[in-house]
Amino acid sequence: MSVGRIICAGLGPGDPDLISVRSARAIRCARHVAYFRKAGRQGQARRIVEGMLSPRAIEHVMEYPVTTELPFDSPEYIHLLATFYNDWAARLRALVTAGEEVVVLCEGDPFLYGSFMHLYERLKDHVPVDVIPGIPGMVGCWNASGLPITWGDDVLTVLMGTLPETELIRHMAGADALVIMKTGRNLPRVRRALEAAGRLDEAWLVERGTMPGQRIVRLADVDSADCPYFAIVLVHGHGRRPVTGGEE
Amino acid sequence: MSVGRIICAGLGPGDPDLISVRSARAIRCARHVAYFRKAGRQGQARRIVEGMLSPRAIEHVMEYPVTTELPFDSPEYIHLLATFYNDWAARLRALVTAGEEVVVLCEGDPFLYGSFMHLYERLKDHVPVDVIPGIPGMVGCWNASGLPITWGDDVLTVLMGTLPETELIRHMAGADALVIMKTGRNLPRVRRALEAAGRLDEAWLVERGTMPGQRIVRLADVDSADCPYFAIVLVHGHGRRPVTGGEE
Repeated sequence: MSVGRIICAGLGPGDPDLISVRSARAIRCARHVAYFRKAGRQGQARRIVEGMLSPRAIEHVMEYPVTTELPFDSPEYIHLLATFYNDWAARLRALVTAGEEVVVLCEGDPFLYGSFMHLYERLKDHVPVDVIPGIPGMVGCWNASGLPITWGDDVLTVLMGTLPETELIRHMAGADALVIMKTGRNLPRVRRALEAAGRLDEAWLVERGTMPGQRIVRLADVDSADCPYFAIVLVHGHGRRPVTGGEE
Repeated sequence: MSVGRIICAGLGPGDPDLISVRSARAIRCARHVAYFRKAGRQGQARRIVEGMLSPRAIEHVMEYPVTTELPFDSPEYIHLLATFYNDWAARLRALVTAGEEVVVLCEGDPFLYGSFMHLYERLKDHVPVDVIPGIPGMVGCWNASGLPITWGDDVLTVLMGTLPETELIRHMAGADALVIMKTGRNLPRVRRALEAAGRLDEAWLVERGTMPGQRIVRLADVDSADCPYFAIVLVHGHGRRPVTGGEE
């Protein structure tokens, strides 16, 4: 019996039309489709491919263990997650060893802060794994903003809102263009840091970029109690401006 | 007569299969296709869409003025380029005003250091312009490396090899993951800066990522006379590692 493989299909920023030709083909042909989701939710990855799966596709829902009562960095939580990833890696590996091809869905680009890595680390030395890149979520967000994120020699820094405030400030002051992910409940700290770095007036909040209900607002105008979940903060670079001649 | 529009189609990192479904559709249906290229070359953008254009498509080749004898920052060069962009913006605008739809090809993602911006700035207030995002070249390169570029809370910084050495060193020392673009003849300086920042041993040179002739080598092993053109330098983040449990 031939050995199958894992295909991790990058899904891009959310609009199904922004999936790559190769990923779209893999998704439409898939016999086995696996994806992560939070308990009780449809899941963002599954929503993006709605209408694309074959009626005969077998869905493997990798539902995160419920962890509301455990702190994110507690040993119990870490153990629970490790067990969850080990269990799913073993199940997918068994399918592949039995000759099956399994398409794992991954929002954005799988190698840029993607949760697929937890499976990749456990599988890549044992079974064939192909990873198809995707348009990162942040690229969809700056596209939605209608402005180039970087020009000329701009320095672009991508930060997580979970970082300590002093680190955020240092990076925000040092780069031309900024992308801040994992905002959510960290948004008040991100906002204070941008203000301290003198960048708050240039900052935009992009919520659900390229998806239904997309919202783009100046961060300074957002109510401080408003911490949307699917949101990214952007500061555009000014760079070495393109040369503009007689027309302007 | 109805007004047409400009569609800037992001092409992704080089493999035509990594173009988005929406961009691919726009390219295949295009009556007018415009793209930049250097004088005497086929051009990377045109090469990517080979075999995709309609036989009836009209190609508008935006060939950069020859500038070998002018320094990049000289007033003559700046004036020459401004005239070139003004001229092409006027020609595309005339087509759109006459009711035509023009697809402008753009490697990678148009809003991340893309040369399309020079046209966008001149056109966006006068005619409808739709920009379709693409997988940036750097995403194709880290995908080709087979390793995630960032994990957990890693800070990612994107730098141009044209920056002064002291600035390069400061950013290289301050971030977890690095992407350095515009290497080429700047590669020796990039290498010195990585060494000074203590990051040279972790650096990879990715040449023609996702394209035929792709090459991935440790930068420390590259001959210092070797400065390939389509190359990006990567340093992967180590981040907050995914939790690994009993399996390992």
